[in-house]
Amino acid sequence: MPLNKLLSENDHPDMAEERRKATFDTDEMAAIIWGSKKRMLRRREITQKVEEHPELHDPCSLAYLTRAEGVDNAARKATTMIRLLDELGIDPLEFEDVFHLTNEVIGIAGHPLALHAVMFIPTLQAQCSDEQLHWIELAFNRRIIGTYAQTEMGHGTNLKKLETTATYDAKTQEFILHSPTRTSMKWWGSSRIKPPCFSLEKGRSVDFVALLRWPGNLGKSSNHAVVVANLVMDGKNYGPHNFIVQLRDLETHQPMKGITVGDIGSKMAYNDTDNGFLSFDHYRIPRMNMLMKHARVSPDGSYTRPPHAKVGYSGMVYVRTQMITHQAMFAAYALTTAIRYSAIRRQGEIKPGCGEVKILEYQTQQHRLFPQLARAYAFLFTGRAVKIVHARVDKDVAKGKVDEMAELHYILSGLKAVVTHLAGEAIEQARMSCGGHGYSKASNIFEIYGVAIGGCTYEGENMVMLQQLARYLMRAANAAQSGRGLSPLVNYLVKPHEKHSLIDREPNNDYSGHLLAFEWAARRQIMKAYERLLSLTSSGLSGEEAWNGNAVELNRAARLHTRLYIAQTFYDSVHAVVDAACRSVLEDLLHLHLNYELIDMAYYLLEDGYLSSQQLDYMKEDMYRLLAKIRPNAVSLVDSWDYSDRELRSVLGRKDGHVYEHLYKWAQDSELNRTQVLPSFEKYLKPMMKEARGPSKL
Amino acid sequence: MPLNKLLSENDHPDMAEERRKATFDTDEMAAIIWGSKKRMLRRREITQKVEEHPELHDPCSLAYLTRAEGVDNAARKATTMIRLLDELGIDPLEFEDVFHLTNEVIGIAGHPLALHAVMFIPTLQAQCSDEQLHWIELAFNRRIIGTYAQTEMGHGTNLKKLETTATYDAKTQEFILHSPTRTSMKWWGSSRIKPPCFSLEKGRSVDFVALLRWPGNLGKSSNHAVVVANLVMDGKNYGPHNFIVQLRDLETHQPMKGITVGDIGSKMAYNDTDNGFLSFDHYRIPRMNMLMKHARVSPDGSYTRPPHAKVGYSGMVYVRTQMITHQAMFAAYALTTAIRYSAIRRQGEIKPGCGEVKILEYQTQQHRLFPQLARAYAFLFTGRAVKIVHARVDKDVAKGKVDEMAELHYILSGLKAVVTHLAGEAIEQARMSCGGHGYSKASNIFEIYGVAIGGCTYEGENMVMLQQLARYLMRAANAAQSGRGLSPLVNYLVKPHEKHSLIDREPNNDYSGHLLAFEWAARRQIMKAYERLLSLTSSGLSGEEAWNGNAVELNRAARLHTRLYIAQTFYDSVHAVVDAACRSVLEDLLHLHLNYELIDMAYYLLEDGYLSSQQLDYMKEDMYRLLAKIRPNAVSLVDSWDYSDRELRSVLGRKDGHVYEHLYKWAQDSELNRTQVLPSFEKYLKPMMKEARGPSKL
Repeated sequence: MPLNKLLSENDHPDMAEERRKATFDTDEMAAIIWGSKKRMLRRREITQKVEEHPELHDPCSLAYLTRAEGVDNAARKATTMIRLLDELGIDPLEFEDVFHLTNEVIGIAGHPLALHAVMFIPTLQAQCSDEQLHWIELAFNRRIIGTYAQTEMGHGTNLKKLETTATYDAKTQEFILHSPTRTSMKWWGSSRIKPPCFSLEKGRSVDFVALLRWPGNLGKSSNHAVVVANLVMDGKNYGPHNFIVQLRDLETHQPMKGITVGDIGSKMAYNDTDNGFLSFDHYRIPRMNMLMKHARVSPDGSYTRPPHAKVGYSGMVYVRTQMITHQAMFAAYALTTAIRYSAIRRQGEIKPGCGEVKILEYQTQQHRLFPQLARAYAFLFTGRAVKIVHARVDKDVAKGKVDEMAELHYILSGLKAVVTHLAGEAIEQARMSCGGHGYSKASNIFEIYGVAIGGCTYEGENMVMLQQLARYLMRAANAAQSGRGLSPLVNYLVKPHEKHSLIDREPNNDYSGHLLAFEWAARRQIMKAYERLLSLTSSGLSGEEAWNGNAVELNRAARLHTRLYIAQTFYDSVHAVVDAACRSVLEDLLHLHLNYELIDMAYYLLEDGYLSSQQLDYMKEDMYRLLAKIRPNAVSLVDSWDYSDRELRSVLGRKDGHVYEHLYKWAQDSELNRTQVLPSFEKYLKPMMKEARGPSKL
Repeated sequence: MPLNKLLSENDHPDMAEERRKATFDTDEMAAIIWGSKKRMLRRREITQKVEEHPELHDPCSLAYLTRAEGVDNAARKATTMIRLLDELGIDPLEFEDVFHLTNEVIGIAGHPLALHAVMFIPTLQAQCSDEQLHWIELAFNRRIIGTYAQTEMGHGTNLKKLETTATYDAKTQEFILHSPTRTSMKWWGSSRIKPPCFSLEKGRSVDFVALLRWPGNLGKSSNHAVVVANLVMDGKNYGPHNFIVQLRDLETHQPMKGITVGDIGSKMAYNDTDNGFLSFDHYRIPRMNMLMKHARVSPDGSYTRPPHAKVGYSGMVYVRTQMITHQAMFAAYALTTAIRYSAIRRQGEIKPGCGEVKILEYQTQQHRLFPQLARAYAFLFTGRAVKIVHARVDKDVAKGKVDEMAELHYILSGLKAVVTHLAGEAIEQARMSCGGHGYSKASNIFEIYGVAIGGCTYEGENMVMLQQLARYLMRAANAAQSGRGLSPLVNYLVKPHEKHSLIDREPNNDYSGHLLAFEWAARRQIMKAYERLLSLTSSGLSGEEAWNGNAVELNRAARLHTRLYIAQTFYDSVHAVVDAACRSVLEDLLHLHLNYELIDMAYYLLEDGYLSSQQLDYMKEDMYRLLAKIRPNAVSLVDSWDYSDRELRSVLGRKDGHVYEHLYKWAQDSELNRTQVLPSFEKYLKPMMKEARGPSKL
């Protein structure tokens, strides 16, 4: 039995050659990646079931559908998927199953019911009072289709600046929803889950968030929405509250009078999703359409404020925890394609006369791909680790202990920013490593990039995220300087450190010195940024001006802290792996990661002589050694992610390596090939050719 | 008269405020950017003429056309544009005019006649013998539509490995074109201009290359192609030669018997272009369809080899020279949008209670955009400088002096790689700096990214390009060590250097010390890479293995050399600017560039103590000072590129700053909004809602 369980007689010989070189069992590794052997097998079972249901398949490559066709196809698949859940043996509350099913059937570009499940229902669950529970039932049974409408054209993240108003009319006991300006128009649908409309109280249902990517469905699919609007009574603004609003007629699907709603147009990705605009022209809804679990408005217009003014971080933390794992998956999608294709693509000779080599033999190609593969694994383990911390901390919150949740919130702000940025880099490097064919949509890497890179913007713009972590770090720096106690997360700020790095020529499998270097770099930059902040304020700037004048240095500090966190987590996770063969190859990836990242941030280590030029050279030599060591396992390391060809949707990334014949098949389906002669020939080209012209100017 | 000549009464107040702050005349700057006042005025004249011709306009945002509609629309515009040339007063041989006209009318995603002009005609001109001149006339008068088919599915860059054969049959005096394998299928159309089919002999016609982006038109538009195939006679392979081949019937446009041709499918960008596949099944063409200016085959099958076996670099050099300028333009497109939008978008407060500020006030936003703007200018000046060198060197080549052309070829290999990579980074940063709306196709930045980033792959993959420059640098390093003479381009390898950087706290407008630091970094890395190469070979590796094991270090050396070249060129160009006010603000950009790039490559300077930690801090402080100094001129610095709204095609980047009302208008045109209720409602969503379902599992 070969160690790489994907090895098959149908494999392209070059691919089979790769698989025979595996030094570890890919099923063991898949179980590590997906959490357990059971989970790995369940994923395969679902993949197999989808394979057997042609009504869940696409009519052709998604690259060839127009946007309207894509939205239609996604609606078809989503409704069919829901109808078949029983037959497929999938419990809609088993969210990991639903998640994988969705990845197989829908892909990553969204579908018209996504937001119904991930935002609408959870919001209702969190916000409906006892008299309002019928909304949850209507939504859960899909008698209505809902979405969540918070962000406006002029304001994405600043909840305080939302302009939509809900003015209470005590005479009729109605709220009048109104969009007073162009910029107050609801836009996207939602771009961020805000704590007030999100809680974990109702148990597992929040896990629907597992399905979350960029939300949408406001434009054309939903007939209801939870709308965030400023509650206004007697001229007083009580701030943003949630209202359930019918947008379209249930029978005709026409917008209600007073409602303007539509699609916001094409985007970089998520084009199968109908993100929408929505505005109100004095649109009246009954008083009881305000979601009243927390704040309440009585018939006479008196207001009861919610019991807790301050809301926890749990919802945001949960979503960002999920994002880390998703970004790891996106990077692994792209790298699966790139590494497999690099193993069957031959180009150029290394030794003259010895024939063309696989491009994976080139050091430049290895250096392009393997450190990125290491990152995908690092992000995966990081996502898992923060998920575990979150589950633990969430229990503490229930008991009123909120400190650690706040801390988790800060580190996740940093992780969200760093991981989305680096995952995007990994995906683009993977695409470019495939040459011209990578540029074709046949690679599908580009669609993955579009989806993944959206994560830099949604759920909190990355620059804002880094600034949030920086605020925490500056408080920690202050505490460190004044000798106050520090939480374990930032305890390295006061831990005694060697003044010179311990990194040696031969690490002999001990990379703890590398981890210390991450700590050194982060600590130095955090304390430097802190000192600079103090010096800017003491030079006469206000606190806010000083902060802004120091923002770039603060972001650097936040990034270094986050990269330390990732490295430490990766380190700990790999050392906890039981299977020796898997641990060994994961150690190779870990060591590559540690070297690569430290070289990337070397200037923070060289500045003050902590690292010597010679030690930097040691790390480089070690990195080149590791690239060559990982090379024979490269294909098996991506095979272990266990992506089906359907989920990967990439001609270049095919499991069997038979790329070129399928590339041609793929091209034949191009919408331009539906007819041999395009209409433009008769309309434009032929007349141009017929037009008599004098001799050329030559 | 305001200094910013774009200031208008219709401007959004926030935009007008920006324009009033200009410290230099934007018309003067536009003349610097476009080469002369005359050229600037001519561009505007063409813009105006296009404005007056509605038949050259698009029916809606290009984002809303399906691929088939896009190709059709591009064919319509291209043929109309050609028909109107006289009326528009444009001489088809005035290539800068045609270039600008194309940017206004077509945009950057190509059109079905692009390759006819940029590849087909020049190839015929370079390759037709005197008996074959009728082909040029047919092509020039557009009685035939042609393209160029070189690359194959399995081979992009390695001309030697092409598989298509043209076997001579002396009996019938025909060549039999054949595609023996799947991978031998012609793919893309062309991805690289090869010296043998390209020359400057026929004068200006080569400037058609000014129109070049990713070539295409093989799939559906062309009825002829110059095909590169291996000439085979009596079982002997004479290597690749050029053949003119009819692909489709001139009347019906159906493919000829023995020809399989079609579109290769959707890509990241260039989707209005029909890049194609093409294969031959024993397709016969007359002997005289081999282009015989250089090599010849006589009727009896005897072969005359071309006079010069070694061909110069001029063609490749020319195209890459153009690419540098185009990449600068692409980056400037994206930055124009991002900086303008950042000046009217308000988000968050810096001082509490003082109202939301323009996001351009945030240091993080400035740090994201201004160094990239500096790069756009740097690349523009670099493009101009190499164009001038090329023109000079080209004359020398005519006199048989080829050394400097070879050198220009190497530096352009590096420039092509570094500039395309950094321009892509600039464009993505610009897009992300626009928040969620940047993700919408309304920003158009994403389309620019798709086109620009293609430059990392076509015209020589970037890793390969860097390796080419590295070969030159290793020869130079060898010469430096053995005391042989060096060309001015690499003379810094032997120039005496201070052992410690001169960079001081107050540069006082003297940044020559910064340039020396670029030299130091490049020299150190080049010599280190050279030593490592020697040590790898002396450790027993073959020359090729050692090269491959050193490839990453060699690429680092090539990048540093290139960045020095850009910095030096930017430095020289800015100091040559005559207008004092323009020079002053360009100096700000230059100084920002020097600091930013050196900080980015700081580890090469810190390693050996050339730069101290304190000097690095000086550079950072100077960089933050410059960000603030550039801030008031930021909008005027992008206004100076003088892009019309039509050319920019960005709702967010509108000249007048009235973004939000136009964003809504733009969205209304979405293909999904053509009907209020999508068919998916009746087909899928309504049946789902009607389906009775039991009580929920809640």
